[in-house]
Amino acid sequence: MRLTTPNLQLNQQGELRHFLTLEGLKPRHLNQILDVADGFIDEHGEIGKVPNLHGKTIMNLFFEPSTRTLTTFEIAEKRLSADVVNLNIATSSTKKGETLLDTLWNLQAMLADIFVVRHSESGAAHFIARHVAPHIHVINAGDGQHAHPTQAMLDMLTIRRHKGDIYDLKVAIIGDIQHSRVVRSQIQALSLLEAREIRVIGPKTLMPPDPSALGVHVFDNIEDGLDDVDVIINVRLQSERMKSALLPSEKEFFNLYGLTKSRLAYAKPDAIVMHPGPVNRGVEIDSEVVDGEQSVILDQVTNGIAVRMAVMSIITENAQALKESTQSMQEDRA
Amino acid sequence: MRLTTPNLQLNQQGELRHFLTLEGLKPRHLNQILDVADGFIDEHGEIGKVPNLHGKTIMNLFFEPSTRTLTTFEIAEKRLSADVVNLNIATSSTKKGETLLDTLWNLQAMLADIFVVRHSESGAAHFIARHVAPHIHVINAGDGQHAHPTQAMLDMLTIRRHKGDIYDLKVAIIGDIQHSRVVRSQIQALSLLEAREIRVIGPKTLMPPDPSALGVHVFDNIEDGLDDVDVIINVRLQSERMKSALLPSEKEFFNLYGLTKSRLAYAKPDAIVMHPGPVNRGVEIDSEVVDGEQSVILDQVTNGIAVRMAVMSIITENAQALKESTQSMQEDRA
Amino acid sequence: MRLTTPNLQLNQQGELRHFLTLEGLKPRHLNQILDVADGFIDEHGEIGKVPNLHGKTIMNLFFEPSTRTLTTFEIAEKRLSADVVNLNIATSSTKKGETLLDTLWNLQAMLADIFVVRHSESGAAHFIARHVAPHIHVINAGDGQHAHPTQAMLDMLTIRRHKGDIYDLKVAIIGDIQHSRVVRSQIQALSLLEAREIRVIGPKTLMPPDPSALGVHVFDNIEDGLDDVDVIINVRLQSERMKSALLPSEKEFFNLYGLTKSRLAYAKPDAIVMHPGPVNRGVEIDSEVVDGEQSVILDQVTNGIAVRMAVMSIITENAQALKESTQSMQEDRA
Repeated sequence: MRLTTPNLQLNQQGELRHFLTLEGLKPRHLNQILDVADGFIDEHGEIGKVPNLHGKTIMNLFFEPSTRTLTTFEIAEKRLSADVVNLNIATSSTKKGETLLDTLWNLQAMLADIFVVRHSESGAAHFIARHVAPHIHVINAGDGQHAHPTQAMLDMLTIRRHKGDIYDLKVAIIGDIQHSRVVRSQIQALSLLEAREIRVIGPKTLMPPDPSALGVHVFDNIEDGLDDVDVIINVRLQSERMKSALLPSEKEFFNLYGLTKSRLAYAKPDAIVMHPGPVNRGVEIDSEVVDGEQSVILDQVTNGIAVRMAVMSIITENAQALKESTQSMQEDRA
Repeated sequence: MRLTTPNLQLNQQGELRHFLTLEGLKPRHLNQILDVADGFIDEHGEIGKVPNLHGKTIMNLFFEPSTRTLTTFEIAEKRLSADVVNLNIATSSTKKGETLLDTLWNLQAMLADIFVVRHSESGAAHFIARHVAPHIHVINAGDGQHAHPTQAMLDMLTIRRHKGDIYDLKVAIIGDIQHSRVVRSQIQALSLLEAREIRVIGPKTLMPPDPSALGVHVFDNIEDGLDDVDVIINVRLQSERMKSALLPSEKEFFNLYGLTKSRLAYAKPDAIVMHPGPVNRGVEIDSEVVDGEQSVILDQVTNGIAVRMAVMSIITENAQALKESTQSMQEDRA
Repeated sequence: MRLTTPNLQLNQQGELRHFLTLEGLKPRHLNQILDVADGFIDEHGEIGKVPNLHGKTIMNLFFEPSTRTLTTFEIAEKRLSADVVNLNIATSSTKKGETLLDTLWNLQAMLADIFVVRHSESGAAHFIARHVAPHIHVINAGDGQHAHPTQAMLDMLTIRRHKGDIYDLKVAIIGDIQHSRVVRSQIQALSLLEAREIRVIGPKTLMPPDPSALGVHVFDNIEDGLDDVDVIINVRLQSERMKSALLPSEKEFFNLYGLTKSRLAYAKPDAIVMHPGPVNRGVEIDSEVVDGEQSVILDQVTNGIAVRMAVMSIITENAQALKESTQSMQEDRA
């Protein structure tokens, strides 16, 4: 029997109850997600409809709008045969003076099984997970600058499906390393899966203050950073950063760090190019590279559906397993 | 054989065809809803998915926005396996100069089976029910200051599940009695189910002009009103009332009528506290009471799903029974 | 074996792959849609739920808002048991600087099977069809002044269900012939199904410059135009046309071309009256006629669901048939 873990997102058996961040997870948690996700994709790259979450109600609580992320979650939920309710929280009860917790408790009383939460504040999904009833699962679909764990996992799935095991690989991430929740989650995932080397490339103003603590190597020259890597991850440049003077201009960024075909040649010949989308063509990456043979950007989108289906299936099954194990223990005592 | 009834919401067999108001219904109609709703809730307080409305199309016509009510209807409809279409009527065809009736007839021609209608005008759901085809059912999800019958029925279900039969009970309703559609429907339900005593508590400006016609006892002192009651129903205070000078201020209302722990002590020790939500903490009710042991506010939310499922199941089954009975009569004649 | 066709919307077997326009189709394509649609409507005028598209994902991409068309597509999709995702494209990724094609490729990577596209630009659905992957189907739900083929097909179904074969009939279309995508598609459909005579009625400013090329007869006097016809199709008057001075005023239009009961008397006694909706009562048509016995306006709405179900079923089955035929050819070679 395992001990109770202090990690909010794990149940007493040490298995995933919520999915809030990759911090504190074990490699086996990540590998389980990747294995289950892989199993949802058939030999033609299609994902069939399965009954795994039939009868469950999933509420997508998007406090921060995101059509792309909402749509992939919605498709994943429907392929799992769940009932889906989209809630645009910003425009509803909070207006009437109700507190966030009252709103949550009400949605919980409406018999939600899973909350998928997107919020502009770091820690929002954790806050919600701390306050919901034990049988409810919370999935973080992006919170402030903190984490975006399903995005990082779809990136890992894409790498694994193209390059095999991750521990062999050198991975370079280009762009705003300091402010991106996607990058934070990617670095945690790559560390847990023991990538051979993690490099971050970009101007000093966008680099983390203590890179060695993160286990990454910093490059401000893109050619040096790309040398001999297996995987290149582009990060979307937030125009907000430009405004705050952390970056000179889109044009200058592209001159210094834009991923062009000639720069791509520094990486291994079979290196893959990734981007979480939406792509700013000609800002962080050249059109020729986006549409080129090494780009796996659209595979990432499809893998995002498989990964989200996997996370929701796993936490639902873990809850079922825990319930059965508790019942059998109670019967043993009786 | 029963006679044709003049009540718009009953069919020729005297059974529910629409659900517009509690006025004119028999106690057996209400008890049937409560019994069916009770049957949808299992011993763990969960509500499973059932096939009762598979293949039916339900259109939620919300002329007045309400995320909370819409969401509980939507969840109830999906648990019944219906196809659900949400229509934000305010922003659609009415703009193009189409009349309300043309819009309705079009939606009817789209093969809707049930219209769930929310409207800021009293009588809107009745108006629609008078003009739809015989096979279409209309459910009132709140019309002006007139009625909100599913809200009242979820309150009755909550009382019954906590306190057993309603005819034994003393019930106090605190707040804006005169303008609330919820209160109108609650008083009708409590009268039909023969509650032992119905009290209304609040400032004179918010009391009905002729309380004895409603069969209620008026109290302007809250301690007197709460004395020895079994059930306390708080009503949400509409800020619109403040603006119209019917009420001095939120603070003064709370001083005079706010439900605090010390006032709650005047009621029976096992009295339950209800509120339709969303709660204005510190205005009509103290946080300590909202979160206290006697509060059943979140049970009301869950019961709302069961009651809405029950209403939609019953009217659909009544239509089927009527159809079969008509067919068998025609066969007898032939 | 059939030859590869250059028509974008047909597959190598000459069967429908997309449904973009009626131009270039054969009468058998139209008759197949009408036959399948007819089969979806039972003897009571009801349309049951069928499993034909279970497991398929349909994305409704409405760049131009239209509650009515969106709702009928949504209902048709749900009756086919598909998973439905509505995307309001105007407010999403395009804002973030992503190109239309990037948005499309992303939605495609989310494993959409069918895109239903509505756009204010002529040719938008064709553009999308040219750029999606081979397994994706595109349905045009109205593009600029170009085409609205499902609307025309529901009109043909309505005529056929009321009057039998179309080649016997004289049909008059009243209104803005020059700018209406609905009329363009209607004339193509009536020509393909060899209607005996197609007349267009309206002021010269709204007539096509070369009517004989379209195979229609032009009338600027409504009584002459309606003489002895079997079918009258009213077209919705766009208020934009008034503003551009192509039309004097709503009142004057009604005086000259409004369909009144006395004008209707010029047509055959059993002539039917159609209108795509929403109706401007008292502008292009009198209320008495809208609600009269010869009006089949609401049948058109119901038939719209059957026709859309038929189109989506047929293109899905064609793709399946092509796949099986290709596989069997490959096996023969092996």
